[in-house]
Amino acid sequence: MASKESQRVDRYWATVRRSTMNPQPDDLVTNAQWDLLTGEPRGVDYLEVDAGGVPALWAVPHGAGDDSPVLLCFHGGGYVGGSMFTHRKMFAHLAKAIGGRALLIDYKLVFEGGVFPQPVIEGVTAYRWLLDQGVPARRIMFTGDSAGGQMAVTVQLRARAESLPLPAGAMLISPWTDLEVTGDSMGFNADNDELFTKEWITEMAGAFLNGCDPRDPAASPLHADLTGFGPVYIQVGDQELLLDDSRLFAKYAEQAGLDVRLDEFPGQQHTFQMAAGLAPEADDAISRLAAWARPKLGLESQG
Amino acid sequence: MASKESQRVDRYWATVRRSTMNPQPDDLVTNAQWDLLTGEPRGVDYLEVDAGGVPALWAVPHGAGDDSPVLLCFHGGGYVGGSMFTHRKMFAHLAKAIGGRALLIDYKLVFEGGVFPQPVIEGVTAYRWLLDQGVPARRIMFTGDSAGGQMAVTVQLRARAESLPLPAGAMLISPWTDLEVTGDSMGFNADNDELFTKEWITEMAGAFLNGCDPRDPAASPLHADLTGFGPVYIQVGDQELLLDDSRLFAKYAEQAGLDVRLDEFPGQQHTFQMAAGLAPEADDAISRLAAWARPKLGLESQG
Repeated sequence: MASKESQRVDRYWATVRRSTMNPQPDDLVTNAQWDLLTGEPRGVDYLEVDAGGVPALWAVPHGAGDDSPVLLCFHGGGYVGGSMFTHRKMFAHLAKAIGGRALLIDYKLVFEGGVFPQPVIEGVTAYRWLLDQGVPARRIMFTGDSAGGQMAVTVQLRARAESLPLPAGAMLISPWTDLEVTGDSMGFNADNDELFTKEWITEMAGAFLNGCDPRDPAASPLHADLTGFGPVYIQVGDQELLLDDSRLFAKYAEQAGLDVRLDEFPGQQHTFQMAAGLAPEADDAISRLAAWARPKLGLESQG
Repeated sequence: MASKESQRVDRYWATVRRSTMNPQPDDLVTNAQWDLLTGEPRGVDYLEVDAGGVPALWAVPHGAGDDSPVLLCFHGGGYVGGSMFTHRKMFAHLAKAIGGRALLIDYKLVFEGGVFPQPVIEGVTAYRWLLDQGVPARRIMFTGDSAGGQMAVTVQLRARAESLPLPAGAMLISPWTDLEVTGDSMGFNADNDELFTKEWITEMAGAFLNGCDPRDPAASPLHADLTGFGPVYIQVGDQELLLDDSRLFAKYAEQAGLDVRLDEFPGQQHTFQMAAGLAPEADDAISRLAAWARPKLGLESQG
């Protein structure tokens, strides 16, 4: 049973679904409202920056400096929503818990021309910019939620193809790994997921792929060559339609020889970590991510 | 007739009123939601800082530097709500339009012990801190909305009593100037104001004053000695219960010999400027404030 605080996420997703299926002119539900799910981390500065041509936002916890490790953060939103502002606070909580900085990028969305592979290209551009700033790859961790979790994999694929060094690892929050939308959880969680329907996910995949093959190994984590990838930590709620996207990718990555950890959170919805600072489950999840990431980024186990 | 975009403010206030009168456990209306009224200004960095013991947030538009003029910003919320986060974007829009920086302070609210004169004391502390940073008083403008408009006056009173130089002027957005709640607009706008009732304003005054006289010249702009004050620019919506708070204070300040400008915006609600970046009326209001402020802060008339 999710805590009262974590149920804010459930209610918000139910509102988003209702408003998406049947939009009302008076609807206050907007992308911007998303960021209400998250408490203010406080003690964090936010600096807009041009990351090699990609708009980006630094979230710099007080105490972190130019030599602190960096989370390169890809926000979720099915390639049709979200921004570096909606996810500012969640990734700032994570950066603060780790003792590093977060760089969130504002890749183009589908309606802005951001169909495959455009967001992936922009992710690589920002990553290359980070490396050019003198941040070593081993001090960079990729992270993302939902479609952003997909990008935390696909940006690595393209970076490797461009002969860039790969980051220290990746933290995937309710990642979307299967563009064919085949998971059994599309069925057994159909009545449990407050946000998605299988049809909606399929539509988003079609819009993003724009005619490309959903099994294209450069687009789909589930069909990718993961050679050279660092360790991967996946978190998912067990109420999600996308639950199998995590289970299947964890299995696939293990078979590819990667160091993989998968945590399923009982009673939790898609990207419940957005309630960081407000809900105990989200705070617990953030703590687990931080404890996992710190030693991999060359930091002491405890912050 | 307010624009469709400006009516977002009307709808939000109606929601706040409903939720205040009859709170529901599922209610997503929170202080945090307030900041949804405002569009992201972009190109602005946000830096948390300790302003002599008062938590504060710098909003620094790109291009502004340590020698740029400063808006000292007091957020609204009847001394019971609001924060430097809810009003981050509105004051950032204003700073950006002026070509200066904004410092928003997080003074204590009533439930945190912030009854009169505590918030005023904290305002003076932050102002003294600014002066101590080497920002000359003539490069500082006070601004605030609603209760924060009241503070933009009362903090000057206390600063003067402590022999500090007064700022270049004050911009008051739907200011609350009359703690006795006597304005005729309490009656003739009773059906027009989407947010307030006279009873609610009276309750807030009582909670803030905590037994002090509502005519105390240190608490009430309408009974204050305005000697030495710089020019004052007041903006108000003509649908507001607080309309007379602006009209009466404009008259009072003129009689005291101040340079006063009052703009009433037809069809607009309380602090409609919160829709900056989204509604034309709010953007127009911000432009007028900026055009008024720039020469008073030693800047060219056009940014």
